[in-house]
Amino acid sequence: MGFKDSLERCKILVNSYIDNVLDENLKPYSLYDAARHLIKAGGKRLRPFLVIESCKLVNGDEYSVLPAAVAVELIHNFTLVHDDIMDKDELRRGVPTVHILWNIPLAILAGDLLFSKAFEVLFECCKTPSVSPERVLEAAARIASSVSLLAEGQAMDVDFEGRLLKSGVSEEEYLNMIYRKTAVLMRASCEVGALIGGGCKEAVNALARYGENIGMAFQMRDDLLGVIGKEEELGKPVGSDLREGKCTLIFIHAFNNASSSQKRLLSKYYGRKSISKMDLESVVKVLREIGSIDYVASLARRYVSIAKEALLKFDECEAKNNLLELADYIVVRTF
Amino acid sequence: MGFKDSLERCKILVNSYIDNVLDENLKPYSLYDAARHLIKAGGKRLRPFLVIESCKLVNGDEYSVLPAAVAVELIHNFTLVHDDIMDKDELRRGVPTVHILWNIPLAILAGDLLFSKAFEVLFECCKTPSVSPERVLEAAARIASSVSLLAEGQAMDVDFEGRLLKSGVSEEEYLNMIYRKTAVLMRASCEVGALIGGGCKEAVNALARYGENIGMAFQMRDDLLGVIGKEEELGKPVGSDLREGKCTLIFIHAFNNASSSQKRLLSKYYGRKSISKMDLESVVKVLREIGSIDYVASLARRYVSIAKEALLKFDECEAKNNLLELADYIVVRTF
Repeated sequence: MGFKDSLERCKILVNSYIDNVLDENLKPYSLYDAARHLIKAGGKRLRPFLVIESCKLVNGDEYSVLPAAVAVELIHNFTLVHDDIMDKDELRRGVPTVHILWNIPLAILAGDLLFSKAFEVLFECCKTPSVSPERVLEAAARIASSVSLLAEGQAMDVDFEGRLLKSGVSEEEYLNMIYRKTAVLMRASCEVGALIGGGCKEAVNALARYGENIGMAFQMRDDLLGVIGKEEELGKPVGSDLREGKCTLIFIHAFNNASSSQKRLLSKYYGRKSISKMDLESVVKVLREIGSIDYVASLARRYVSIAKEALLKFDECEAKNNLLELADYIVVRTF
Repeated sequence: MGFKDSLERCKILVNSYIDNVLDENLKPYSLYDAARHLIKAGGKRLRPFLVIESCKLVNGDEYSVLPAAVAVELIHNFTLVHDDIMDKDELRRGVPTVHILWNIPLAILAGDLLFSKAFEVLFECCKTPSVSPERVLEAAARIASSVSLLAEGQAMDVDFEGRLLKSGVSEEEYLNMIYRKTAVLMRASCEVGALIGGGCKEAVNALARYGENIGMAFQMRDDLLGVIGKEEELGKPVGSDLREGKCTLIFIHAFNNASSSQKRLLSKYYGRKSISKMDLESVVKVLREIGSIDYVASLARRYVSIAKEALLKFDECEAKNNLLELADYIVVRTF
């Protein structure tokens, strides 16, 4: 089975587990409807895939790790629901966001519920006798500390947005931010899979390195898609990063390396709420001229190489191939 | 040492642990400042006290359970920060709420951070060799499911507020709501203390029953204080439950048992944003006439009796006395 088929299979397993966790008969209906909304709207299920393939790579059983795979997906969706409130995003995965369809209070609660359910589900790993409580605890501790880092990353992101044009944001600060905001949960997904799968310390660490590095690459590809992606594939309006004045590596690089006339054009449209398709194209053209798009794409590829290197020590097997293919896919994906 | 001294001692232990968890050097500063704000503003630390005394009652060591005591306090504060956003409350513990002092995005994040830190801290219980990982996992599972129930309770509360005057809310619905919103975390506090303390199943269950019942009484006393409490003691404006049209047992009972002229007066002021001191007094007078205040006070005392009965089987000791005194205090407290 190739990478795409394995991912499809993971999706089916995870989705049907989630259907049970967030059963339609649970009350209050409005709260559970709101909690289900984003998860039901789609998503690639990459994080559960990381959990399952990491588990398989250390010869663990995929069914024993399924609750953990579901847990990280619930965590991921909890952060998206809350982030959308903070970022005032109205569309995700092609559907209106939770706070738009319901309201901010229910969106806050739906996120909180997804968070607590994630831990409830995670602890179901204990039902498999071969999985030791020590390993489940270690997995839970890594997920908990990832969420703390995610909150730090989101706070940095919000802070950076206002700062880029004023005092500037350095590439190092940006890397620190996306490490927290994106890389740590992918890292934790791999760690958790390897831990529950019974992997040795070295295997857990190698997979952590893999996960962290594809996470960095993943966010950079996201930044690229925020500028050059297509609306019908992304499920959200094209050029939104520009309009919302997001602090992505593309804009950090562009403002740092633009000529004064290029900077004038960028400043004109950066953070402007409404922008025509033609003006957007002129911005993209300037970003290409400055070399910002190539720069980010090539840095993303470098992180992918480091990620793949981390897997060298593992014997050839389907899970290893899947993870290697996933690393390559991350920087060519169109959504 | 009496109940008050023990509570004071618990406060000191818990506060100094929290100072470490939310250290002032942690970044981003704004996020950690926001996360510290409400906890630093005060609070009775009743839930950590329940954890510690429950642990001691089953002959556990209070230092081994301290991380769990801190964890439930962090959970409690996380829910308060998020609830204040939802309820648009501007004052708590005598200080402006987090979303007022900072903003809604940072208040959401601060709450999320307190939640994840709670689990991080809880897992530190594993550092005590005599505490088994199985028991820490069981404690974590009970806290996680409590938070799910808390979210359900808060969603019910928000829903009820709009419903009381329209279609009515039954006493049973109300009891279901406060069970989730208030009682489960007090129940979990006792369970967690008994679990980490090494208590047998019967002891854990008895303490669960104790915690659940003082939780119900606690919320009813809160409802009473929302009407007859004093601003300088409560740290929030007097009569706010009336102005905000909160669905408390007092108003459920009052609307169900009022004469038509009493109902007219209640309806006139219930949910009205601004109300004079004299009008507030006339509402309280009517609530007394209907018997709603006595009704809620006597029901609260009944829950306290059930709670105390649950402790009968335990041998006499300081922890037992403390928990018995706490149960009595809950229904006479003025803040």
